[in-house]
Amino acid sequence: MPRFALLIEYDGTPFAGWQAQADQPSVQGAIEAALARLDPGFAQGARIAAAGRTDAGVHATGQVAHADLARDWDPFRLSEALNWHLKPAPVAILSAARVGDDFHARFSAHERRYTFRLVARRAPVTHDRGRVWQVQNPLDLDAMRAGAAHLLGLHDFTTFRSTMCQSNSPVKTLDQIRIEEIAIPQGREFRFHLRARSFLHNQVRSIVGTLERVGAGSWPPCRVAQALAARDRAACGPVCPPQGLYLTGVGYDPAPFPG
Amino acid sequence: MPRFALLIEYDGTPFAGWQAQADQPSVQGAIEAALARLDPGFAQGARIAAAGRTDAGVHATGQVAHADLARDWDPFRLSEALNWHLKPAPVAILSAARVGDDFHARFSAHERRYTFRLVARRAPVTHDRGRVWQVQNPLDLDAMRAGAAHLLGLHDFTTFRSTMCQSNSPVKTLDQIRIEEIAIPQGREFRFHLRARSFLHNQVRSIVGTLERVGAGSWPPCRVAQALAARDRAACGPVCPPQGLYLTGVGYDPAPFPG
Repeated sequence: MPRFALLIEYDGTPFAGWQAQADQPSVQGAIEAALARLDPGFAQGARIAAAGRTDAGVHATGQVAHADLARDWDPFRLSEALNWHLKPAPVAILSAARVGDDFHARFSAHERRYTFRLVARRAPVTHDRGRVWQVQNPLDLDAMRAGAAHLLGLHDFTTFRSTMCQSNSPVKTLDQIRIEEIAIPQGREFRFHLRARSFLHNQVRSIVGTLERVGAGSWPPCRVAQALAARDRAACGPVCPPQGLYLTGVGYDPAPFPG
Repeated sequence: MPRFALLIEYDGTPFAGWQAQADQPSVQGAIEAALARLDPGFAQGARIAAAGRTDAGVHATGQVAHADLARDWDPFRLSEALNWHLKPAPVAILSAARVGDDFHARFSAHERRYTFRLVARRAPVTHDRGRVWQVQNPLDLDAMRAGAAHLLGLHDFTTFRSTMCQSNSPVKTLDQIRIEEIAIPQGREFRFHLRARSFLHNQVRSIVGTLERVGAGSWPPCRVAQALAARDRAACGPVCPPQGLYLTGVGYDPAPFPG
């Protein structure tokens, strides 16, 4: 059966997360329902696999999943047909590509990229409600950058890992953590860009929640290094809410999608 | 009575526009209801005046209105109290300032700034639904810039004016029309930044709708000059929908809001 990779964008607000669950709306369920309109295998319950199983409320601009279909679809027509059947859910197939049978959206991925949007201003957000995490205190960019620097590279991230995490090992390499500051009306938005081969459950939200405490002045930046060294979940700062988190990209070699 | 200027942000989606109307939700109505919780005059039906009366579905990040209050409020406490009472409407008071009795949000304004967000890509937008106008055809930035250049300066904008426009004269000076191109996943966003002392009703949406035709290749850029010279509403391109339009700022001398 021909295998297709799908590049997927979604607003996570109305979903209980990526993963299909009985009686709860999921992104996976929405896409599988659209596939069931096109393909006999999915009409009989075939499943798709994704690079990252995002939590409830988490968004994506570059999620990747793969599906095995009965027909050798033209990839553009496949994405158009899926977008038609996905309406009105806030889920879009940005691109589809024919891939080899050895391509697996999760196991072939050698890199995941996440962005977390954190807004610091007094007045409530309006347009970005549900799309950012807002705090009302100002944040110190340099302090957050100093705290973040301690997390770069290969570490035991037990402190920054959900107790529910099913990963075999807490040892991961964080390849990038870059913090961008953007002026917004009467406030600041901070975008945390993180890149790694893979992440632990709640790792990005645990890191950003901790760095927010640093930015607010409650934690000195060196306390991030101490928290990491403690290898103890209790040493973590507060885990921040999901609605600022975006899965922005997944890396494969070769890249399945053109341009 | 002390007069206050309010800097206002809102998501226009749930509102029938800025202007208060019987039995329809309006931004003005939401703010006046919040003021009525704080001030006896507004409890008895006092009104606020705004720099620009935005249409249904149009957004703002820098609307300005003024209100005369019984008490000499600390401006910061006033904005905090209003934001409290505005919940959960997607309207925020970004700043409040004490101004002189000769300040009028509409008549003292010497400049209005609008931004129109136009997304060009095949796949439907997800996060920005209701916040941009989407077309599925690609757009030529250089052609749109060439078309826009014909509109700069002092002109009779009858072609680009709603037949409902109540302005005394169709002659206006367009001080700026700048088009910014931003890469988005599998598409392009074009932001049209327009600046003038004042605008005619539907002028920005008429201009952007016309320039989209130029970007799509349906109109040569010079047809914009011909349409302008025609001084005929029928020569205008299609008026684009409201949800991409943002009132981003209003200029006063001196500026009422700090920093």
